[in-house]
Amino acid sequence: MSVSKKKRGELIVLSGPSGVGKSTVISELLSSRRDIHFSVSFTTRQPRTGEEDGVNYNFVSREEFERMIADQELLEYAEYVGNYYGTSLKVIRDKLEQGVDVLLDIEVQGAAKVQERCPEAVLIFLIPPSIEELSRRLHRRNTDAEEVIQLRLEKARQECRECVHYDYLVVNDTVMDAAQEILSILQAELCRTQNRLHLAQSIIGQD
Amino acid sequence: MSVSKKKRGELIVLSGPSGVGKSTVISELLSSRRDIHFSVSFTTRQPRTGEEDGVNYNFVSREEFERMIADQELLEYAEYVGNYYGTSLKVIRDKLEQGVDVLLDIEVQGAAKVQERCPEAVLIFLIPPSIEELSRRLHRRNTDAEEVIQLRLEKARQECRECVHYDYLVVNDTVMDAAQEILSILQAELCRTQNRLHLAQSIIGQD
Repeated sequence: MSVSKKKRGELIVLSGPSGVGKSTVISELLSSRRDIHFSVSFTTRQPRTGEEDGVNYNFVSREEFERMIADQELLEYAEYVGNYYGTSLKVIRDKLEQGVDVLLDIEVQGAAKVQERCPEAVLIFLIPPSIEELSRRLHRRNTDAEEVIQLRLEKARQECRECVHYDYLVVNDTVMDAAQEILSILQAELCRTQNRLHLAQSIIGQD
Repeated sequence: MSVSKKKRGELIVLSGPSGVGKSTVISELLSSRRDIHFSVSFTTRQPRTGEEDGVNYNFVSREEFERMIADQELLEYAEYVGNYYGTSLKVIRDKLEQGVDVLLDIEVQGAAKVQERCPEAVLIFLIPPSIEELSRRLHRRNTDAEEVIQLRLEKARQECRECVHYDYLVVNDTVMDAAQEILSILQAELCRTQNRLHLAQSIIGQD
């Protein structure tokens, strides 16, 4: 039996259509699990009101983003509604090796690339209770023109089709319940046999 | 995409060496999740002090047990330290079809047979914090002769080798923590994508 006492961090990928409330669920989650490192993505999109550089995203120019692509500094990147979004490879690799769990908030194309490169990553897809509720949330956010909202709703339907490639589906009906379900998923993942073989080893003894 | 609204119950298998404290953890678990049906095993062993027929086990004679084997009434059965232990097929099948989660407390041979017949079952192995602690617990129980305890400890080491075939390992350090981890595992299993595709279907719409 191959066992190791050294515990790498867990790579957690959270996706979901825009407007589903990912940021709020993530805030709730991180307030319970302060040990999780939230990976701040790089993007070329404009900051929304209240968004801070280095907190919500690392906002960079299109030129800078294209340099990062060329220099292979990104674990994954994708273009979405005309803007680039990407994840720094180095930060994540360092954290995981230190045993720190890392949370990525990325869309479905990026998640597929992460899964390809890190098959042990835990993929969670956040879905709205209904498409009507998603529409209400996008309108309530009041940041997008109606045609952008309609584009996002159609994109949401397409993205939700990709949920079959994820390990878990969490419904964001209430933020507390969604965060609680994610906490349970993370605790369950820690209990997976392959993550705990070193504990069994002490009972079995050395062969 | 093949989806179904009908939710079958979850079949949960809990194993662990004797003395690890399975019964106490199960009591704690069932007090939080009263909707779970605990499947009472059939056995030919003598009841211990405080054990009730139909509650802890269905205590039957060796002749009756062998009739049940012959009539194929058992999902699994095994012989362990000279006694038969087995699980009724019909009760479990009915409960699962009604959407009720069913918990089985069975040993490793039986669990392997359940996994063969029901690959979707969730297999959880309860391990003691150490072999020394297991020895202390077996002595404290004060129900077995020293040579039986030594037999159980050797059997425990053998059984713990089989934990690699289980989905999850839970350490019974404190009863509350072990029960909490099992609750998280069950909640996480509910969130598995294949168990929730009907929720995504309402977003995606019918194809």
